[in-house]
Amino acid sequence: MDRASASTVARLSAYYRLLGEFERERAETIPSKRLAARAGVTPAQVRKDLSFFGNFGRRGLGYNVLQLREEIAAILGLGRRWRVALLGAGNLGQALFAYRELEKHGFFIEHVFDIDPKKIGTRWRGLEIAHTSELPRRAADPGIDIAIVAVPAEAAQGVADIAVGAGIRALLNFAPGKIVVPDHVAVREVDLSIAMESLSYALVK
Amino acid sequence: MDRASASTVARLSAYYRLLGEFERERAETIPSKRLAARAGVTPAQVRKDLSFFGNFGRRGLGYNVLQLREEIAAILGLGRRWRVALLGAGNLGQALFAYRELEKHGFFIEHVFDIDPKKIGTRWRGLEIAHTSELPRRAADPGIDIAIVAVPAEAAQGVADIAVGAGIRALLNFAPGKIVVPDHVAVREVDLSIAMESLSYALVK
Repeated sequence: MDRASASTVARLSAYYRLLGEFERERAETIPSKRLAARAGVTPAQVRKDLSFFGNFGRRGLGYNVLQLREEIAAILGLGRRWRVALLGAGNLGQALFAYRELEKHGFFIEHVFDIDPKKIGTRWRGLEIAHTSELPRRAADPGIDIAIVAVPAEAAQGVADIAVGAGIRALLNFAPGKIVVPDHVAVREVDLSIAMESLSYALVK
Repeated sequence: MDRASASTVARLSAYYRLLGEFERERAETIPSKRLAARAGVTPAQVRKDLSFFGNFGRRGLGYNVLQLREEIAAILGLGRRWRVALLGAGNLGQALFAYRELEKHGFFIEHVFDIDPKKIGTRWRGLEIAHTSELPRRAADPGIDIAIVAVPAEAAQGVADIAVGAGIRALLNFAPGKIVVPDHVAVREVDLSIAMESLSYALVK
């Protein structure tokens, strides 16, 4: 199967959440237009996104809510426990660690790394902050699926290189600027300045 | 002028940063293909994005680095001081407040609001945390351009309504789930769960 675009995958995540709402409302089947209306997209978009991954609806009957939700979960790799390492124990790292929402979605921060001697050995909710040099050993055993880069911009490429060298294949980068990784590694960027500039663009128009 | 798509505006932000690099490297003019290569897009994409806003390059000569950078800054509303209010003084609010990068881009957090009596009246770097009920008065004078929603999911729509009611026309939402606003208000969402699910999707493939 070809790789879906980042925006298709993001819409799939949104459909997954909305199907959870329909489930709580005890809807058994829904037409694509109801899902589309709630997601704020066209019914054609919903059908196109889903048809990329398979054949989910029955003509005239719509989608089975429970079944479609399970199928999307399988596509997105939900319903398992992903092992996450936090690279950087500053304010942002602390906010991410405190953010319980990620665990609801199966993402568990099991390691926190930093290079500040004052932080290493201290504990966050029982989890000991380790030196970044420990990362390769921990990635080998017990294993790390995803690394969150929450260090200052000038340190981002360096810690990303350590993570990639340790075999980690997925990075979420909060540091401003691009990090360069080999093709087999997936990177998503959360760039707050770009989000803010998109708002200032809206205000000057 | 029509409204550019969110992805066009995000690429414009990226070009702006890269033009800053070219400036520091003392490049005077650059062909679209050099800008494209550094941005990781095709030259046709660069030309299409820029042509949406005007006629910047001269055939065969490429873009004047300084001039293009200034023109993009004007389009994005950069080079001014935007007044930002932070709604929510929890861990995430604290991380955003500590994040100096936003000020470099002209976004200054001038107000922090919360409803926790233990936080109200305390100071972050001299800035006093105010009760959310103060927001309308402050939005009227001295004025607030952009509000950052950094409260728990269940409180997000409520504070967004207060901000919109106070005349704020741009919101950056960190709370999971959509917030509903009138058409004249711009919202950008930073949804960490969706970013993480896009990574787990990459890992299961």
